[in-house]
Amino acid sequence: MSVSEAKIIADLASRLTARGLTVATAESLTGGRVAAALTSRPGSSAYFQGGVVAYANQAKIDLLGVPAEVLALKGAVSEECARAMAEGARRRLGTLLAVATTGIAGPDGGSPAKPVGLVWLATATDRDTRAVGRFFPGDRATVTRLAVRAALELLSEAIA
Amino acid sequence: MSVSEAKIIADLASRLTARGLTVATAESLTGGRVAAALTSRPGSSAYFQGGVVAYANQAKIDLLGVPAEVLALKGAVSEECARAMAEGARRRLGTLLAVATTGIAGPDGGSPAKPVGLVWLATATDRDTRAVGRFFPGDRATVTRLAVRAALELLSEAIA
Repeated sequence: MSVSEAKIIADLASRLTARGLTVATAESLTGGRVAAALTSRPGSSAYFQGGVVAYANQAKIDLLGVPAEVLALKGAVSEECARAMAEGARRRLGTLLAVATTGIAGPDGGSPAKPVGLVWLATATDRDTRAVGRFFPGDRATVTRLAVRAALELLSEAIA
Repeated sequence: MSVSEAKIIADLASRLTARGLTVATAESLTGGRVAAALTSRPGSSAYFQGGVVAYANQAKIDLLGVPAEVLALKGAVSEECARAMAEGARRRLGTLLAVATTGIAGPDGGSPAKPVGLVWLATATDRDTRAVGRFFPGDRATVTRLAVRAALELLSEAIA
């Protein structure tokens, strides 16, 4: 973990704890690394309730309630899927906040329309759901690492 | 990730892929790190379906079907809970294999009967469920890292 990522996590932990907020994760390409980041500090059980690593499409449907039509029509790497994942995690875990990641870490699975490095992120709160699309050039580890960082930043913005 | 952990993951990936086996995770103290390890290699979507990070007890009940009585009578850090988590993940994710971790990473949460560093791990397959209790001395990061490694080793034994 980089110093700057540790700083984002420390800041998030401090704000979540002080305000009594709870958070859940819904991860595809990041494979549990956002949850790992959120649980890296002592006392994280005060705000982190849990999360779902939904790698397969069926897991997105079964564990997060992502509509099968979203996956069929828009694909797993889409704004709509990221939004449904965040909302599903928030609902299933009963938290105030949730953050979701879905994307193509590579090296396989890319296409001209959805290249390796494309990532959709979303946060859901009691007010609204916000999604952002990003493109991170690099190898599998780099794409994944940058997606984790972007998820933490988006979560930070959601409670700004 | 250490060289030896990378080797365990590479070996697991190769055997899971060659035999067409699927795997799910159910994690408490490791907070998504076992899923992260299993998805660190390209092609991991062939075997890794997904997992649940069940940090809060309610998440263990809601997302993994751990009986509330197990949590009330034995506690979240127990052989019974580890077994129920692994079986729940296998059932909910529809995989052949599942691996579960639950323990006390510290620095808080320990007691004389259940000290910081106590970890229960379990694997569930179509044949049986196996659990093992371990004690890892060290700080939060060390306990967590050793628990991830133990989970990968137990998974490896389950498909030996």
